[in-house]
Amino acid sequence: MAKPPILTPQAEDFPRWYQDVVAKAELADNGPARGTMIIRPYGYSLWERMQAEVDARIKLAGAENAYFPLFIPQSYLAREADHVEGFSPELAVVTHAGGKELEEPLVVRPTSETVIGEYMGKWVQSYRDLPLLLNQWANVVRWELRPRLFLRTTEFLWQEGHTAHATAEEGAAYTERILRDVYTDFMVEVLAIPVLGGRKTAAERFPGARNTLTVEAMTGDGKALQMGTSHDLGQNFATAFDITYLDDQGASQLCWTTSWGVTTRMVGGLVMVHGDDAGLVVPPRLASIQVVVLVVRDEGGAGDAADHLVAELQGAGVRVRLDGAVATSFGRRATDWELKGVPVRVEVGPRDLAEGNVTLVRRDTGEKVQATVGEVAARIPVLLEEVQASMLAAATASRDARTAQVTSIEDAVEAARTGFAKVPWEVVKGDGEQRLAQESVTVRCLQRPDGSLPHSEDEPDLVAYVARSY
Amino acid sequence: MAKPPILTPQAEDFPRWYQDVVAKAELADNGPARGTMIIRPYGYSLWERMQAEVDARIKLAGAENAYFPLFIPQSYLAREADHVEGFSPELAVVTHAGGKELEEPLVVRPTSETVIGEYMGKWVQSYRDLPLLLNQWANVVRWELRPRLFLRTTEFLWQEGHTAHATAEEGAAYTERILRDVYTDFMVEVLAIPVLGGRKTAAERFPGARNTLTVEAMTGDGKALQMGTSHDLGQNFATAFDITYLDDQGASQLCWTTSWGVTTRMVGGLVMVHGDDAGLVVPPRLASIQVVVLVVRDEGGAGDAADHLVAELQGAGVRVRLDGAVATSFGRRATDWELKGVPVRVEVGPRDLAEGNVTLVRRDTGEKVQATVGEVAARIPVLLEEVQASMLAAATASRDARTAQVTSIEDAVEAARTGFAKVPWEVVKGDGEQRLAQESVTVRCLQRPDGSLPHSEDEPDLVAYVARSY
Repeated sequence: MAKPPILTPQAEDFPRWYQDVVAKAELADNGPARGTMIIRPYGYSLWERMQAEVDARIKLAGAENAYFPLFIPQSYLAREADHVEGFSPELAVVTHAGGKELEEPLVVRPTSETVIGEYMGKWVQSYRDLPLLLNQWANVVRWELRPRLFLRTTEFLWQEGHTAHATAEEGAAYTERILRDVYTDFMVEVLAIPVLGGRKTAAERFPGARNTLTVEAMTGDGKALQMGTSHDLGQNFATAFDITYLDDQGASQLCWTTSWGVTTRMVGGLVMVHGDDAGLVVPPRLASIQVVVLVVRDEGGAGDAADHLVAELQGAGVRVRLDGAVATSFGRRATDWELKGVPVRVEVGPRDLAEGNVTLVRRDTGEKVQATVGEVAARIPVLLEEVQASMLAAATASRDARTAQVTSIEDAVEAARTGFAKVPWEVVKGDGEQRLAQESVTVRCLQRPDGSLPHSEDEPDLVAYVARSY
Repeated sequence: MAKPPILTPQAEDFPRWYQDVVAKAELADNGPARGTMIIRPYGYSLWERMQAEVDARIKLAGAENAYFPLFIPQSYLAREADHVEGFSPELAVVTHAGGKELEEPLVVRPTSETVIGEYMGKWVQSYRDLPLLLNQWANVVRWELRPRLFLRTTEFLWQEGHTAHATAEEGAAYTERILRDVYTDFMVEVLAIPVLGGRKTAAERFPGARNTLTVEAMTGDGKALQMGTSHDLGQNFATAFDITYLDDQGASQLCWTTSWGVTTRMVGGLVMVHGDDAGLVVPPRLASIQVVVLVVRDEGGAGDAADHLVAELQGAGVRVRLDGAVATSFGRRATDWELKGVPVRVEVGPRDLAEGNVTLVRRDTGEKVQATVGEVAARIPVLLEEVQASMLAAATASRDARTAQVTSIEDAVEAARTGFAKVPWEVVKGDGEQRLAQESVTVRCLQRPDGSLPHSEDEPDLVAYVARSY
């Protein structure tokens, strides 16, 4: 019998614990080329669920999916000055193809503003064509010096939305709408991660944006993890790619564009926010396997009862998996499902069954309760929603407990050793960001005192969240 | 008022007609780098539906989705001799990344047998790990000299399945299962395309395969279009990548692997098989928009009645779109929806409505019938299934009418001017393939007399389907 997988305890070495979970829960593997990643079936099943949930919200926000090419002529990137400066060090370049050297090298897209800008310029003619709301699910490549599975890989998967609008106000409003209705809603309601939404400082903005909004999670070791961004690009790309429209008076106007994305990094975020020393903990609304029905020993009708329960749960719309692999010890299998973070385990064994019972085990709290066989199918959906709510509550409490209100750079640096510091932006403004950077601490986002999104970093009384980050 | 889009008639110039449909129905556009493609939202919505239907069938066949890297070390490709020879002329190569020249150039995957083989070798240890059934949805790159949107592009989207098995029989059986239960079932039942399934000749095999199975469609101009392939790779890749397992006796054995794929080329196939001089014709089970409810003029309550019908049809599970853009002429809008191939149009106008009626128009036959407002929601699902069945019947009849049974190479070449020729394989065997090739005709597939799949091209009485092809 194999030994149960052993993870480095979080308290001992969090990054090592993370690496162990990713490997032992079979989420991902390092690829052959430096910094690339292989997403294994269980890891990919979590990403597929993320895609489905995010995609549905993107469509509700009116955007349509399309697909743009992987290869971008090098000259396109050069058209927006900040953009090319920001991305040049990270580019992978195709110089040879079809057995010949190319006349113009092709860049493997690090993001698609430039190529999409070129085509928006073709497609948008009149105000009737606006807003143009596009999204794509794709792979992108940014050469990473310090790769880490899911969090920072040379190639990653993402969605990138790109929109064009008639006015500055509409562009800004859509940037906020995506942050709120798509990203925040998904992360809070499905991932059970209480993200902070805010505005990036000028130093942390996307290359070419006039405003970058972000959602930030707190990991188990008190660091910040950027989970998604939404950029108001102003007229920078519209100018570079001549995205213009005729208004209702027949006058030519420049468009206002936005872009926004979330990536496979969210899988890493999920691990780092909810995981514990036994492994991953997946919130039920996300889980690709919400419930595993485990046959303890195939005696006393346990196998048949488990089959029956699986069918009943499937009928109730639960994503359920049967584990009847009784050749492997019950303990080993239970440990493996814990490692994979399946929210609820239903243990079906001959002893309980003799009294008409099975045992329900919650992954998040470890709590075990008995239930009669007949009531399982009705209780599970309720239990799953309880787990979902309590995971969000626990993550929120944990984050709040590790967020300190401070009024100086020194105290902010100190607080950032274990969590977030909330510090008046006026204290940081000026050289504060540089002083923080010397301690590997950054401003994660700016908020208004009521938590809403500032329209400028010059608004009074803004609050800065500062932290170390992944 | 804009003029209705005009397509080159099919009879005049079929390839030109195809190009017109792809552009005017807004399916796709040429990308900036040679041979690349931009899939526009309507085209992508068809691909998304294809993905959903194929993915569900792949999962039913037991395979799980994963994701492998875009970049493959050049040395990996070299390990399987036929494979590297077959793909070398088509490769795109990254030589520079992160501002430096790479020590080993990276190939942009033309297909992933090699990198997946490497990891299968790591993951497969014992017979208990088999079969290992993987699939991925990804982009791949093959440098094309004569690109054509959807049919042959430098970058295309596809799924590629890769499996490892304990025995030759299991590998061969899975290769056939995918062709039958996934590809043929999807193409016949959803795309309404009566594909021919068969075995490729040695000359037409995938580089590195010991057997390639194919599904072939007949286009509107009587050519063959390869719609998908399933390869029995024997032990070629298992040998090259050391994919071995310990059998139940503890002896080390080489695995047997398969690979199989369908691509965005299917969108082109859909256009070419079902399209007519008015544009695309999309079968209802595939259609992203199955029904469009068209307000003829917003008078006599037509707008409200249309809204109500849309809600009712949505409730009945129909994928429906409202067209209430009455500022554009009714004729222009009707022509546009025809161009996009929406299976059923519901026309809601004040005159019909005064008598409690609307008009239902079938895209495939052009047939118009009156229906009372109250019965629309019940009739549409039935009508959609009728359209589906009659599209398959029409495509089958058309293919059969253009398939000639012949007994010589000369007659096969003659028949291939307008369709398929069915010719005894023994007539072609030897130098027949070369003689056909001189007339740009190829053997599309071999079948047994009863239509089933041969296990070898040396079986007696095999039938060869020969044709020109895209």
